[in-house]
Amino acid sequence: MATVIAVDAMGSDRAPRPEIEGALLAARHYDVEVLLIGRENQLGAELAQHRCNGLPVHIVPASEVIGMDEKPVEAVRAKRDSSMRVGIRLVREGRAAGFVSAGNTGAAMAAAILTLRTLPGVDRPALAAIFPTAAGTPCLMLDVGANVDCKPMHLEQFAVMGEIYYRTIFGVARPRVGILSVGEEENKGNELTLEAHRLIRQLPLNFLGNVEGRDLYNGNVDVIVCDGFIGNVALKVSEGLVLTIRTMLRESLQATLTRQIGALLTRRAFDDFKHRLDYSEYGGAPLLGVRGVCIVAHGSSSAKAMKNAIRVAAETAQGGINAIIEQEIAATKVKVES
Amino acid sequence: MATVIAVDAMGSDRAPRPEIEGALLAARHYDVEVLLIGRENQLGAELAQHRCNGLPVHIVPASEVIGMDEKPVEAVRAKRDSSMRVGIRLVREGRAAGFVSAGNTGAAMAAAILTLRTLPGVDRPALAAIFPTAAGTPCLMLDVGANVDCKPMHLEQFAVMGEIYYRTIFGVARPRVGILSVGEEENKGNELTLEAHRLIRQLPLNFLGNVEGRDLYNGNVDVIVCDGFIGNVALKVSEGLVLTIRTMLRESLQATLTRQIGALLTRRAFDDFKHRLDYSEYGGAPLLGVRGVCIVAHGSSSAKAMKNAIRVAAETAQGGINAIIEQEIAATKVKVES
Repeated sequence: MATVIAVDAMGSDRAPRPEIEGALLAARHYDVEVLLIGRENQLGAELAQHRCNGLPVHIVPASEVIGMDEKPVEAVRAKRDSSMRVGIRLVREGRAAGFVSAGNTGAAMAAAILTLRTLPGVDRPALAAIFPTAAGTPCLMLDVGANVDCKPMHLEQFAVMGEIYYRTIFGVARPRVGILSVGEEENKGNELTLEAHRLIRQLPLNFLGNVEGRDLYNGNVDVIVCDGFIGNVALKVSEGLVLTIRTMLRESLQATLTRQIGALLTRRAFDDFKHRLDYSEYGGAPLLGVRGVCIVAHGSSSAKAMKNAIRVAAETAQGGINAIIEQEIAATKVKVES
Repeated sequence: MATVIAVDAMGSDRAPRPEIEGALLAARHYDVEVLLIGRENQLGAELAQHRCNGLPVHIVPASEVIGMDEKPVEAVRAKRDSSMRVGIRLVREGRAAGFVSAGNTGAAMAAAILTLRTLPGVDRPALAAIFPTAAGTPCLMLDVGANVDCKPMHLEQFAVMGEIYYRTIFGVARPRVGILSVGEEENKGNELTLEAHRLIRQLPLNFLGNVEGRDLYNGNVDVIVCDGFIGNVALKVSEGLVLTIRTMLRESLQATLTRQIGALLTRRAFDDFKHRLDYSEYGGAPLLGVRGVCIVAHGSSSAKAMKNAIRVAAETAQGGINAIIEQEIAATKVKVES
């Protein structure tokens, strides 16, 4: 039976087009049924422009939309019939196995946390982002924004959850786990990471100890844990640097060649480069630790990114990741208390 | 009279060559006298290979060297006759106006802090790194590694020191100052940044409030304050990403063209690109808040980078930055206490 995934059709910068096209692509390629949530008339009109005969893609009406600039918690509380709340509700009621949104990240997290609650034993859910590396392997970093002030225990839980996610989604038996710090030596770090190091060392993980900022992109580690403040800064510094390098390099290449050849070559090179750096390949950031599956995609997501996010939501649900997290977190606590 | 700058001639990855060549370049171009500190025989032999007739470059002997992998505080304590300690001592004794090292960053900071002590009113010195931006203006971020656990008051002092440094070295009358956070809104951040925001808002600075990771590279802000843990992660994430992008893009460009043309074009473009991203243009990271001038250059510094670091050390000394810091920090405290 097809896995049912609810998709916030009003979330992305160019909604609902990428959502609808992504839903159709996903329904065509994977064993999923997609529920597109949003303004019925708008979605119906857009959907009518596509060939979707027989594809399991349906509209679920939601009259309100949470904007990118709205304050997350306030907006989620106020807009009970928003596409986010309706989508998350479908997950809570068991009518969908997962939810995907490319809208306001804070609001998606708030809606999921407030409505679904956390898994037993998990104190704080974490948003996990996937980064491309020079080695070609993905690197999962969590938390990248759900928690700005963390305790060592939270980082320990992030390590458990991230490792399970990586293992299940990327099919790696013993992912390498590290703590983001300012030096590889065990005594390097701040109060938070030093204590988290002591806790995580005791878990049955393939634990590398401390890793540094540069390890995010070199493929030396698979799962990096950090507090959400640091993770968010690392993510946004990266986004900013990519944009700046792209601008600088385009200017440089065009200056070294005649204008036309330069433009042609840079377009080709950048298309390929963009593809390789494309975070959307990995299908968005999972919010780990809530009772349900919630994937947050980038606001600028393309149809392909939405397709991948839907695939990842389905795989996360099918992989029973939450049951494994619950079980392994419980085992961690038993061990620590004994 | 020429400004005397002491240079750790044993610090960089390829020491002492870049140090010696950089010293000669600086002595030729600026009104500085350079004291090269290190093993006398080695430096003498190397110096003899260059034309330096009449240039004010002298050797000051130091028998020990602190390696890149040594533990900073321990190494500084143990090696009393290391090039770092001898160099910093010259500053303390007033025989040099500033010190430059491309060696072990932690050791350079430890030597400076232990020997020079902090300026009156400054609780914690901060290492300030300079980043290139898409707008062409430099962005100064501090702290990038001197303090892994900071209090709001420390961030406040970083704001004062960074603003003075930027104003003096880059000649900008009212540099824009921001706090690195996870959102621009005033209520976004962690405990540390929220309280620091409240403190810095009260200072007579051109304060933008919160800035985000992406602002490090877009030129929207001149001085960014953060704790040394975050700053170090941002710096190292950037270094790692630049390397990865370079690798990926080189492969992409070579794949789209015949091998020879590709290699030629990429070399040209990367030379220019590297130049524009070249942190060494700005001459290393100043350690602000100590009683003396100390500039830490990158381990991979070229002769040009060393030349620039020596220039920046001289400008920092000539600009009387420490006297201004002392004065403005005192004014801050009076204001807060009144």
